[in-house]
Amino acid sequence: MSEVVVRKAQISREYAAKMIERALERAKELEKNVSIAVVDDGGYLVAFARMDAANPSSVKIALDKAFTAATTRIATHKWFEILENDAPLRAGAAIGVERLIVFGGGQPILHEGAVVGAIGVSGGHWTGDTDIGSAALGILENA
Amino acid sequence: MSEVVVRKAQISREYAAKMIERALERAKELEKNVSIAVVDDGGYLVAFARMDAANPSSVKIALDKAFTAATTRIATHKWFEILENDAPLRAGAAIGVERLIVFGGGQPILHEGAVVGAIGVSGGHWTGDTDIGSAALGILENA
Amino acid sequence: MSEVVVRKAQISREYAAKMIERALERAKELEKNVSIAVVDDGGYLVAFARMDAANPSSVKIALDKAFTAATTRIATHKWFEILENDAPLRAGAAIGVERLIVFGGGQPILHEGAVVGAIGVSGGHWTGDTDIGSAALGILENA
Amino acid sequence: MSEVVVRKAQISREYAAKMIERALERAKELEKNVSIAVVDDGGYLVAFARMDAANPSSVKIALDKAFTAATTRIATHKWFEILENDAPLRAGAAIGVERLIVFGGGQPILHEGAVVGAIGVSGGHWTGDTDIGSAALGILENA
Repeated sequence: MSEVVVRKAQISREYAAKMIERALERAKELEKNVSIAVVDDGGYLVAFARMDAANPSSVKIALDKAFTAATTRIATHKWFEILENDAPLRAGAAIGVERLIVFGGGQPILHEGAVVGAIGVSGGHWTGDTDIGSAALGILENA
Repeated sequence: MSEVVVRKAQISREYAAKMIERALERAKELEKNVSIAVVDDGGYLVAFARMDAANPSSVKIALDKAFTAATTRIATHKWFEILENDAPLRAGAAIGVERLIVFGGGQPILHEGAVVGAIGVSGGHWTGDTDIGSAALGILENA
Repeated sequence: MSEVVVRKAQISREYAAKMIERALERAKELEKNVSIAVVDDGGYLVAFARMDAANPSSVKIALDKAFTAATTRIATHKWFEILENDAPLRAGAAIGVERLIVFGGGQPILHEGAVVGAIGVSGGHWTGDTDIGSAALGILENA
Repeated sequence: MSEVVVRKAQISREYAAKMIERALERAKELEKNVSIAVVDDGGYLVAFARMDAANPSSVKIALDKAFTAATTRIATHKWFEILENDAPLRAGAAIGVERLIVFGGGQPILHEGAVVGAIGVSGGHWTGDTDIGSAALGILENA
């Protein structure tokens, strides 16, 4: 029998805020100045922080990285790996898909096997941005 | 104790399709030619149908009506009532809020007290559009 | 003798709906979760369905693939082949042409030698998306 | 003597976060579900929070209210008063000026007589949104 609705979930504001606290801490350790965005499963913003010395450009990139990871269910650094081995996607995905970011810093937030949101970090090199996002995701493991 | 996620739901594709079937039936009874869109709780399209004689403009209006009702949690005909008694909103809401439609035809889909999506109908006068949407919502009452 | 009008045709809603039914069936066989859009000869949406587990990003990509195939009269996977052998187009088409998708999943719907619409599929890899669209086009052969 | 630079300031991330904490507290007192954005003097986001039950539409409206207040240096509820007494502006400002919101909820953040950012609140009626923003601004008085 079919169901009227499909059950799902979104990251809570409180945990989004905790993730941002952890990301800020990790960014300080790495001496990076970043913007951090946490969005829900549909890519809508839940929480955000920009460090005082992070550049203005980092705002939109962090938002778009989180949007990409939430709405495609794929981390932005994985997108690059996908493009590398696929010429048509390489030619068209980053351009043709709205707000698609294909370098590291955006990662889905998984809960009970489902994507319930995403975190996007921007401001340093994308490798550091990914590291900061991973640190934030780490707090959910024992939650 | 705070929770990692907030539980929610979205209208299933099968029920979205059933709603559209019912809307088409009602539109034929009223001799209207319309587009019908069903979106999820975040305004993302789930199902859509345009009758053969419905105008091209009805496509985007149906999508925007559904988007308005889903993302503001308020039916588009209620938006007009709100604006009527509120001069600042009247001056600015329809213009300043992206994709906000303030005439009838968009209605939230409620399930267990929560908005799980919306239906948008466009192509006839907005009173008929609302009637068609209401007929589609009716099938959920005994579901 | 010149004519007042140019006769044309658009895919009917009923056949668009049948194409989507077939596409859903094929997607299930392939264990893919996709969005499927059918548009008319002007790129205006006629019918749409998103499977419950398809990601939100697939909505706009399916619409844009169908729009590309309908309004350029060229399948999106053919666009890549064209770009490969044409440096100026490669430099500019995907960027300069609005909503142009250059990886597979969008295909024109032909009827009596003319484009009467297009189907766009998104959510899996573009090779599978194309397969699903082709299955849907197949129902028109004996129609 | 002319100067090479013009000194200015932007709201710090820490105080932006404190303002959001206060806004959340006030929203709970008023039983409202809102999004809250704090931007710098150029309209770039510094901090953001969306309550779990706030609708998706509130995200962009809060951002735009803050953007309006920061970049025009005028609170969004004052914009309506200005429009009321100025026919040309009334005809054109809300339409012609990008992201201009003309109902309450966006307020500049003043420090030593200068605008150093803005707060935008959306999700309830604009009168309550303004009240919540004012509460957040209040914490700066004794800072």
